[in-house]
Amino acid sequence: MQQALKQAQEAARQGEVPVGAVVVSNGKIIAKAHNQVELLCDSTAHAEILALTAAYQALGSKYLPHATLYVTLEPCLMCSGALYWGQIGRIVYGAEDIKNGYRKFTAHHHPFHPKATIEGGVLAAECAQLLKSFFAALR
Amino acid sequence: MQQALKQAQEAARQGEVPVGAVVVSNGKIIAKAHNQVELLCDSTAHAEILALTAAYQALGSKYLPHATLYVTLEPCLMCSGALYWGQIGRIVYGAEDIKNGYRKFTAHHHPFHPKATIEGGVLAAECAQLLKSFFAALR
Repeated sequence: MQQALKQAQEAARQGEVPVGAVVVSNGKIIAKAHNQVELLCDSTAHAEILALTAAYQALGSKYLPHATLYVTLEPCLMCSGALYWGQIGRIVYGAEDIKNGYRKFTAHHHPFHPKATIEGGVLAAECAQLLKSFFAALR
Repeated sequence: MQQALKQAQEAARQGEVPVGAVVVSNGKIIAKAHNQVELLCDSTAHAEILALTAAYQALGSKYLPHATLYVTLEPCLMCSGALYWGQIGRIVYGAEDIKNGYRKFTAHHHPFHPKATIEGGVLAAECAQLLKSFFAALR
C-alpha cells in the first residue's frame, strides 16, 4: 500500500485526483499506476484500470487469480467490474469512498469474483488525507 | 443500433465475443468499437469502454452529456460505471444480459448519471442471436 500511496502522491503532483494502485504477483510488483483522467482526457483512466491493463500485459494473461491489487481508495463500480472480469484473487484498499465506492450499490454481495478476498481500511488515514488535501487546495 | 450490430459482427469474425457499440453526438457517429478482449489480452477492453475512450478523444472532453451510446448488449457493471463517469446522456442497448448485466446488481436504482435515460430491447433478437450463434459455434 505504501507503493500505491507513492503513485497517488505522483498523481497529486500532476493535478490528478490522487489515487494510486499496484498489482502484486508472486511477491513482486508487476504493475503500478495512478489516476490519469485529466492527462488522457478519459474518464475511464482510473488507477485500477490502468494498473490492471499493465498487469495483463506483464503476465500475458487477461486473468489474475493469483494476484493482489492494492489501491488507495475503495474501488468504484467501474473498477469493481473490471476487477471481476480480471478474476483478481485479492483486493486491498485504503480509504473508503462513501459517494462512489462499490459498497453503495452492492450492499448485499460484493461484485468481485466469487473467490476474491477483499480487505479495506489499510493505511486508510494516509490515503484519505491525500484526497482531502487535494480537494481542499482546489477550493 | 444497426451500426453497433455491424461492429458486433466484426467482433465475431475476429473471434471476439460479439458485442458492438457506437457513440452518437449531434446526429453523427463519433466513435465505433467492438469487444477486443482477446486481441488486446485485456479484460477491460469491452466495446463500450473502447467506444467511450474514442468518443472522449473525438470531442476533446471527458464528459458526454449530449451523446447517446448504442450497444448491442446490456452493459455490465464495469461499463455501467464507465458510463456514469462519462455522464453520458442516453444509453440504448439491445439484448439483455441476465448473468452480467448491471440490473443484476443495481435493481433499485440505475448506476448511470442521474440525468441519463436508458432504453433496452432495441433489435434485441438480432443482438442476442449473434451472441447465441457465437457461443454455439465454440461448443
